[in-house]
Amino acid sequence: MDCEIITIGELVSGHRVDTNSAYIARQLTRLGINVKYKSSVGDSMSAMEECFRLALRRAKIIITTGGLGPTDDDITKKAIVKVFKRNLIFNEDILEDLKERFAKRGLEMPAINQNQALLPQGATLFPNKHGSALGICISERGRIFISLPGVPFEMKQIMTDEVVPYLKELNQDQALKIVSLKTIGIIESKLAEMITDNFRLGQNVKLAYLPAPSGIELRISATAENEDEANEAVQKTIREIEARVGRYIFGREDDTLEAVVGQLLVDNDRTLAVAESCTGGQLGMQITVTPGSSKYFLGGIISYSNDVKIEQLKVDQNIIEKHGAVSEECAMAMAKGCRELFNSDYALSVTGIAGPDGGTEDKLVGLTYIGLSSIHDTFAKEFNFGSLREINRSRAIYAALEMLRRNILDIE
Amino acid sequence: MDCEIITIGELVSGHRVDTNSAYIARQLTRLGINVKYKSSVGDSMSAMEECFRLALRRAKIIITTGGLGPTDDDITKKAIVKVFKRNLIFNEDILEDLKERFAKRGLEMPAINQNQALLPQGATLFPNKHGSALGICISERGRIFISLPGVPFEMKQIMTDEVVPYLKELNQDQALKIVSLKTIGIIESKLAEMITDNFRLGQNVKLAYLPAPSGIELRISATAENEDEANEAVQKTIREIEARVGRYIFGREDDTLEAVVGQLLVDNDRTLAVAESCTGGQLGMQITVTPGSSKYFLGGIISYSNDVKIEQLKVDQNIIEKHGAVSEECAMAMAKGCRELFNSDYALSVTGIAGPDGGTEDKLVGLTYIGLSSIHDTFAKEFNFGSLREINRSRAIYAALEMLRRNILDIE
Repeated sequence: MDCEIITIGELVSGHRVDTNSAYIARQLTRLGINVKYKSSVGDSMSAMEECFRLALRRAKIIITTGGLGPTDDDITKKAIVKVFKRNLIFNEDILEDLKERFAKRGLEMPAINQNQALLPQGATLFPNKHGSALGICISERGRIFISLPGVPFEMKQIMTDEVVPYLKELNQDQALKIVSLKTIGIIESKLAEMITDNFRLGQNVKLAYLPAPSGIELRISATAENEDEANEAVQKTIREIEARVGRYIFGREDDTLEAVVGQLLVDNDRTLAVAESCTGGQLGMQITVTPGSSKYFLGGIISYSNDVKIEQLKVDQNIIEKHGAVSEECAMAMAKGCRELFNSDYALSVTGIAGPDGGTEDKLVGLTYIGLSSIHDTFAKEFNFGSLREINRSRAIYAALEMLRRNILDIE
Repeated sequence: MDCEIITIGELVSGHRVDTNSAYIARQLTRLGINVKYKSSVGDSMSAMEECFRLALRRAKIIITTGGLGPTDDDITKKAIVKVFKRNLIFNEDILEDLKERFAKRGLEMPAINQNQALLPQGATLFPNKHGSALGICISERGRIFISLPGVPFEMKQIMTDEVVPYLKELNQDQALKIVSLKTIGIIESKLAEMITDNFRLGQNVKLAYLPAPSGIELRISATAENEDEANEAVQKTIREIEARVGRYIFGREDDTLEAVVGQLLVDNDRTLAVAESCTGGQLGMQITVTPGSSKYFLGGIISYSNDVKIEQLKVDQNIIEKHGAVSEECAMAMAKGCRELFNSDYALSVTGIAGPDGGTEDKLVGLTYIGLSSIHDTFAKEFNFGSLREINRSRAIYAALEMLRRNILDIE
């Protein structure tokens, strides 16, 4: 069952990054629905009509996002009724709902929002818990055409609560198994060399290397006549891969490194604090992305200035004078000081030259030291994350979490 | 001059979000090049060929990203030479460069990377400063076909340093002016109501409302026969918009709220520290995204646990017992304690229920208090950011920065 995803609106001009189509595609892939086409169209009526008609010819399921808002440039509904030769009908119940929603927030509904109660005749409506644009579904001549709002968290809620259960019902005769293994600390070409050396994939098995900020994700997929066969083919491949590169694999599917590390801390009844210089809070932020992280994460010090390192983290001023704030010695002192200040079992520290300025001939932009202090010992490692500020800050986060994971699991 | 952007590889299955096409589209839009089509294709040779051929029929400039890596699933170059009926030629100089690059990092080049020295005959090559896949450009029969690597920071470097200057040369006869105004603290429909009330746009002027995490971006564009006319049309529209909603506008174009606030701190020679509970470091992280933020940002305390609030920030234990950690009183005490601890001119504090757990009947998930302490006074405001953890943490960051901006500028 082929699907096309169409993103509508300003995405074509690049003013916004499209996260929606990836989210939708991921949900569909898990249902065994093949996302064959993705396209993007601006707020032009003729281009949108053309795009919808092409999609209805080449795909069975079409999902659009965007253009359902109340303003003049939101014309998706108008294009839908033109293509399906239907009318927009004013829905009193929906209007009442909308007014109530605004009232709850203590606001009067702007008149312009009345547009959102105008809906295509005969469409199934999917409620939107977080916003005023409803999801719209039209099923006609073997085609399913679904329109969702463009605001990501609104789209996600409707997708999860309404669209996925709706499509699940329709798609029950495919046997596709997909498993993702997440690696960290090894480059793609090295990983490929280690995996493919004297090893051939089964005929019905595919292996993809997907670079992500934390590392390379290995996606193994197999198709077969029935679920057991597809599953067995995937499992056989996984066993082979684990035997070869298992030490770089930290998790599967939606596992994040921070959640995996968090679970290790919970399992071992340990607590963590952080001391951050160049990352400015990003390590703490990443750790606390995981709900329930308060079970193991106590807090941290953002020691952006040297004074804070000395006063709060009790880093010896001599260390900074002799070795600099970006040094193995300083990273160790920060981690140790942080663990003592917070009375935690572990402390991680990051100090580096994030750039673009601040580099010297001896210490290039991207030079970063990550420290780890535990009840057993305190040490630090040197990294060179390259010259891009955003990238090297993000690499530092993952390197720090991986240092802790390996330390807890006692992996080299 | 119409352009098509094609993203290649695993994006179709949604395992990665496509940030590349937005970046490319934005660069092209600024050059006055119209991005008319965006499409996405998987790692299948036949689909890629079909997609390239369609693009060559309907667009004059085609830019692809992805599929230039060394592994077996990277087949973009093979598809290019098939479509253009050329050969892949082994380039000795490139191979030497690659080997040197690995050697510099103290690594031996994996044999598989040799593939990256195989390049289409007669192509112009764009150097890649951050990786091993070169950019490729083929110009034939009035069409320009450019292939860039999929790794975002590699693509960006080649796009900025090579592709933009190359295309600028070709496109010098259009008059298009685009200005973006960035707003915060007002919803889209209200903004539209205030702007469009008794005001009509010029015929050649377009206004788009672009929702972003920090608020609504207004994009005003005008086309005209010459640059002066286009510019005048845009400026006239901006004056009208500023008269109506100026107080919600914090910046233009690539201005970020954190950079605007940072510049205000620099201009006033003031320093800032932060105390973060539910945001776990994200406020500090966002502030330090801006290079040079060490000029005004001293650091912060991530007070995820109540002990840290009491011990580091000197929040009175009675406040937490009586009002709770998520309260106006606690936010004020955190901000005040933070300012005193860091001896900064300003301190911002955030305490809230990020969710999904932790909400009560009195205090719903998303309830957040943001505190601001300055030499003049200390106060806190209550916000309700909704039930989604990631969203309400992000909203808290922008609300905090906006509170500081308004305080410094003395706006209500």
